[in-house]
Amino acid sequence: MSTLLVLYRRPEGGPEALATFERRYATEHMPLVAETPGLRATRVQRVSEALGATTDLAVVTAMDFDDRAALDSALASDPMRQAGRILREIAPGLATFLVLEDAPDLG
Amino acid sequence: MSTLLVLYRRPEGGPEALATFERRYATEHMPLVAETPGLRATRVQRVSEALGATTDLAVVTAMDFDDRAALDSALASDPMRQAGRILREIAPGLATFLVLEDAPDLG
Repeated sequence: MSTLLVLYRRPEGGPEALATFERRYATEHMPLVAETPGLRATRVQRVSEALGATTDLAVVTAMDFDDRAALDSALASDPMRQAGRILREIAPGLATFLVLEDAPDLG
Repeated sequence: MSTLLVLYRRPEGGPEALATFERRYATEHMPLVAETPGLRATRVQRVSEALGATTDLAVVTAMDFDDRAALDSALASDPMRQAGRILREIAPGLATFLVLEDAPDLG
């Protein structure tokens, strides 16, 4: 399993800016993500705190694919490209995109 | 569902230091985590890259609990306290602990 894990930092502008981001994320970005070919599972979670530290992260989204080839095909697909364009509008410079691979040998 | 998401940065010392961290993580830390009361699921993944950026992250682990109260009880349990002591030995200052809450309204 390959996972695209996206870490979203909190936008500047306080709770109102965060609410605007969340509204457009849910109504514009995620419907396109849902159409992505090869997407096996999606999980969107809010960051409530960092233990023993502060964090500027607000939302974490995990998207699972069968393998890295399926993830790369998904990234090149029309729905994901459109979803990416919306992200650049609603969260410019605020997202980190990590590619993760299952590591059964680690636990 | 509440999730404890732990982001591990790469230790200094190159591939050898990373291999040592991974070995102790798998053989000392994770067996204790597995004994944690209330733990519903665990997923350990390696970070293979950050898209369009560099990253100092090496491993990401997600631990799921029924809710925040179960997560807090788990953190206070003997297995998790012992697991934490080992982490402070094998990954001092290298881990970020995020508490995540499912956000079905977002996606």
